[in-house]
Amino acid sequence: MADQSLLFSRIVTDLPETVPFVPPEELERKTGVKIRLRLGANESSFGMSPLAREAMANSLGENHLYGDALSFDLKEELAARHGIGKEMITVAGGIDELLGWIARVFLNPGEPVTASLGSYPTFHYHVAGFGGRLHQVPYRKGKNDLDALADTARHTGSRIVYLANPDNPTGTWFTADELKEFRRQLPADCLLLLDEAYIEFAPEKAHFPVDPADPGVIRTRTFSKAHGMAGLRVGYAFAHREIITAFDKIRNHFGVSRIAQTGALAALKDEGFVRQVVREVAAGRREYEAVAKTLGFTAYPSATNFVAIDTGDANRAAAIREALWQRGVFIRIPGVAPLNRCLRVSVGTPAERQEFVRILREVVQEL
Amino acid sequence: MADQSLLFSRIVTDLPETVPFVPPEELERKTGVKIRLRLGANESSFGMSPLAREAMANSLGENHLYGDALSFDLKEELAARHGIGKEMITVAGGIDELLGWIARVFLNPGEPVTASLGSYPTFHYHVAGFGGRLHQVPYRKGKNDLDALADTARHTGSRIVYLANPDNPTGTWFTADELKEFRRQLPADCLLLLDEAYIEFAPEKAHFPVDPADPGVIRTRTFSKAHGMAGLRVGYAFAHREIITAFDKIRNHFGVSRIAQTGALAALKDEGFVRQVVREVAAGRREYEAVAKTLGFTAYPSATNFVAIDTGDANRAAAIREALWQRGVFIRIPGVAPLNRCLRVSVGTPAERQEFVRILREVVQEL
Repeated sequence: MADQSLLFSRIVTDLPETVPFVPPEELERKTGVKIRLRLGANESSFGMSPLAREAMANSLGENHLYGDALSFDLKEELAARHGIGKEMITVAGGIDELLGWIARVFLNPGEPVTASLGSYPTFHYHVAGFGGRLHQVPYRKGKNDLDALADTARHTGSRIVYLANPDNPTGTWFTADELKEFRRQLPADCLLLLDEAYIEFAPEKAHFPVDPADPGVIRTRTFSKAHGMAGLRVGYAFAHREIITAFDKIRNHFGVSRIAQTGALAALKDEGFVRQVVREVAAGRREYEAVAKTLGFTAYPSATNFVAIDTGDANRAAAIREALWQRGVFIRIPGVAPLNRCLRVSVGTPAERQEFVRILREVVQEL
Repeated sequence: MADQSLLFSRIVTDLPETVPFVPPEELERKTGVKIRLRLGANESSFGMSPLAREAMANSLGENHLYGDALSFDLKEELAARHGIGKEMITVAGGIDELLGWIARVFLNPGEPVTASLGSYPTFHYHVAGFGGRLHQVPYRKGKNDLDALADTARHTGSRIVYLANPDNPTGTWFTADELKEFRRQLPADCLLLLDEAYIEFAPEKAHFPVDPADPGVIRTRTFSKAHGMAGLRVGYAFAHREIITAFDKIRNHFGVSRIAQTGALAALKDEGFVRQVVREVAAGRREYEAVAKTLGFTAYPSATNFVAIDTGDANRAAAIREALWQRGVFIRIPGVAPLNRCLRVSVGTPAERQEFVRILREVVQEL
């Protein structure tokens, strides 16, 4: 390298120049398209609780103060709602940040990790970013293949197995009983990283119970989805207290913004708002499923705020996405086969859904 | 360890359970004291620009959307104002986050770093957090000892030398010419990490010029101080484009909140507000300096929004801090000798300064 100052660490030197997701704003800048329907990032078109908005508006005069590095009030409220101790909770700037902490805390360079092929790219990114080696297991019939994941975790000696429940990008889910059986199949030194970003949209039986005595499970959650606060950057994790202590040794202690703490605390208390969002999203999923059928596609059964519509063919999916994009509709297609036959579409408001369905029909007919 | 799941990475296992700063909220919870005057974290009592507040209030309906992972608009404005290319800028959730990226990008485990003894604890924390070895150089006559820092960087083979200009916790500063000479003394493979968190408060001649051709300097800046946005978590760095590219390989791409991007962009455009804050802070520093003198103490010459008042004795300083705390006044004392003789006090509003001075006089007389 030309200059000796530009000697980076071994891990960073070996990393590719890739990013987990190109943001929609950058896609707009690159293509000159202006987005009219933003349904590609599973943001909540229903916004956030009016109580959260009010609390944030009232706190605008406090932005000159650092937030509480311990997020004490927010953890206290989470602890009370989930019936667990505060010492089992950490708060971070979204699940993305948590995934980085987890890779950093658990992995030495070169150590193995298992996840589904096509699962959340940001997890894969952080595993690579800390020098981990990712083993990937194909989806099976549109779902994570739990047996194969456990097998791979075992024979590779994985330190972590990542599973999103409900899943992204398929939207599918497992019951707590299935997850408990999966947990039992994992080796004793393999952590189950259960990403529950979409758990609020899932039926009760998908809720894996919190066991404070089990050091082998971390669950990550967020205010980005059902609470409609993706832009605020606040998420949390439940884990054994020794894992929370390990996070405290490395985390950016003042990293969560004060206004996010304020908003999240107020949002937690507005259960009625979240229930209403969940109901509306369920109705929207049924609309998308019906439309998929009339177009000759199949929709994966979803317990999230999006639906993966299987067009049966990756080229067709790509063509549809491009035609949608040219009409200002932002959706995503998962990056790898066979999921790349699917259009992943967020459930928007009734008006957005109507507009999306109208344009989708138009596009499919034209192609 | 009892459970094999709790096997952490070698670096994390070796880390102590310490945090860079205990937040004032936690001090309140631990002691039962209620803070009346919060002058210990160098937050800006002058708040943020009304234009920033208005922009943020108007954007409250957008919090369900992720921010732009590239912070494009904010970088564009920063680039225009500083006359450099966008490719030399990165935006992060405050300087604290940037310091973590820098340690991660430049250090292999065991590699050496140089900083002043008593300089910013969060930098030390991140160096340790990525397995770096910190060499510390005592302050000399209340200032960073540039010659000794360069010597130590050289003989230890340091990859990074950290220098805050203006300095925290002393408030002192160097001219651009002194810094250029310092830069010349550093080995070719040693990065100068210039932390300019307080640069807006410093005289023009303290501004080290940006040289896009120099890959050996990173400058970190923030909206937390002069712009009064500590709670929002937004900072940025200027560096060689290859360093910015390295950050892009590891950073949390969606980590900066949308509302922080909005607020920071609006704040940048309100130069009059920052000028007014800087003038008011300068007046406040003179008040503190005068009071220090009447109490028989000396104030370090400061180009920041705080003043380090040297009481001449560490025990006296500790006693004063404790007495202030019992009266609800939050200030800090640097952690190591000889700086631990100093009270580090943020410059508050005129009313806060008056109240602080009244209580300080009372406390000093009583002790």
